[in-house]
Amino acid sequence: MSDLHGLYLEDLAIGQAAVYTKTVGEADIVLYAGISGDTNPVHLDAEFAATTPFKQRIAHGMLSAGFISAVIGTKLPGPGAIYLSQSLRFKAPVCIGDTVVARAQISAIDPARRRVTITTTCEVRGKVVIDGEAVVMVDSRGTAT
Amino acid sequence: MSDLHGLYLEDLAIGQAAVYTKTVGEADIVLYAGISGDTNPVHLDAEFAATTPFKQRIAHGMLSAGFISAVIGTKLPGPGAIYLSQSLRFKAPVCIGDTVVARAQISAIDPARRRVTITTTCEVRGKVVIDGEAVVMVDSRGTAT
Amino acid sequence: MSDLHGLYLEDLAIGQAAVYTKTVGEADIVLYAGISGDTNPVHLDAEFAATTPFKQRIAHGMLSAGFISAVIGTKLPGPGAIYLSQSLRFKAPVCIGDTVVARAQISAIDPARRRVTITTTCEVRGKVVIDGEAVVMVDSRGTAT
Amino acid sequence: MSDLHGLYLEDLAIGQAAVYTKTVGEADIVLYAGISGDTNPVHLDAEFAATTPFKQRIAHGMLSAGFISAVIGTKLPGPGAIYLSQSLRFKAPVCIGDTVVARAQISAIDPARRRVTITTTCEVRGKVVIDGEAVVMVDSRGTAT
Repeated sequence: MSDLHGLYLEDLAIGQAAVYTKTVGEADIVLYAGISGDTNPVHLDAEFAATTPFKQRIAHGMLSAGFISAVIGTKLPGPGAIYLSQSLRFKAPVCIGDTVVARAQISAIDPARRRVTITTTCEVRGKVVIDGEAVVMVDSRGTAT
Repeated sequence: MSDLHGLYLEDLAIGQAAVYTKTVGEADIVLYAGISGDTNPVHLDAEFAATTPFKQRIAHGMLSAGFISAVIGTKLPGPGAIYLSQSLRFKAPVCIGDTVVARAQISAIDPARRRVTITTTCEVRGKVVIDGEAVVMVDSRGTAT
Repeated sequence: MSDLHGLYLEDLAIGQAAVYTKTVGEADIVLYAGISGDTNPVHLDAEFAATTPFKQRIAHGMLSAGFISAVIGTKLPGPGAIYLSQSLRFKAPVCIGDTVVARAQISAIDPARRRVTITTTCEVRGKVVIDGEAVVMVDSRGTAT
Repeated sequence: MSDLHGLYLEDLAIGQAAVYTKTVGEADIVLYAGISGDTNPVHLDAEFAATTPFKQRIAHGMLSAGFISAVIGTKLPGPGAIYLSQSLRFKAPVCIGDTVVARAQISAIDPARRRVTITTTCEVRGKVVIDGEAVVMVDSRGTAT
């Protein structure tokens, strides 16, 4: 069992939670457009964005969804877990300068199948901008890589 | 109606499809780690990754999910649509050098609520690595911004 | 005391250790050259590098030193600590494809001044490529921000 | 002797100096987080950073230290020199938008061992934010690669 391995099945309990936070800057949006290929002008063109209901450039929804990946991949459960699924409801936009708080909280554990269900949210100033659910498969100490 | 605006409700039909493709390189993974904060060693550490079931470094699942965002945000329906939800099932890993084909195909249209349901997949060499479903709200020509 | 805060003075003991690991790819070197401005051809020009004692392109020493910053800034002691100093001895080169294991281990604690001394090393395949020492100032639970 | 080679032992004198400068932007910080793995929220989260003594996001100390690497690796002595050691004292933070002036000045030369000691500083608006010392080994024209 590596020093780098995250939490094991035996370390997890319903209600357990972790957080990752990030202020979304223009640099994030430009870089994410380049990596993802999502060059929608609502993210990159301030003049076009001004004509939309959002009135200004907004971050890609999937960019903020990545902060959920950060919590799950680095904290709860962390390295060693396998990401099986993620649902995402985009409820409100994230604008340049907003600080996103991504939160993961365990809602169910299926020990036989080593499946853990995690409620995932992103909030800006206390308002939910994304909600959804992740399912991950975790190692148990007996079966760990 | 801006020249930049994508497809309107009236332009869409069930079965309509679009594709975005991208070869995932090490640079994408490094940059995505910085934007998302997901520094899980399965993405960044070849020695750790060799001890996992994947046997090598894999791309972040959410990185590949971003290519779905690219199809929806730039092609089908493109700029002007509002991304309401996305479900993702991560079925197989994407490795460095793999070319991901992200595909979006309209499966349902609710004209009254201007909701469009889109089947979304990512494939590598013909094998599905991610599947799921997106829901977007589109402008109609009568109500467009 | 924020959910994001790392370890406090009261959580630390001599001998406590943490690790961060990263495989260094060409992308890291190119990006680091761009950020730092260190465009020395020993890092970027394979033909020039072949004429040096290293016989191939090597990573910037300061790039690998950044992995020490990752251990200290995210794990031991993590967020809230203030980085006061770092010494670095570059003992062997890091080449493209090498996996660097950055290790931090507490060697001294001065509770009155809240100073913690940390032995820092980077290793590749068990061989030390950088050694040195960091000093950080940590919050105590009584005085924390 | 390559056209790319920097200064030789015979070209160097005590007091000789060089400078590299860079304005630190948000993009540098995001990219550096990805390369280094240092996702400490004091660099990435404006709300967390506001609760620290710095009151705002600060650049990674090691990011600014890279500008010293740039002076040494490209100017004084430049390509061909081997970086043996660097000490760094982080005396004040670097914030987004600050222009860092990295300065290297030769303080001692040991011709027998081809060791050159260099005083290194980073300044912002005339204030020292990092000081320290580098030691490099340089080629002499007689022994050069």
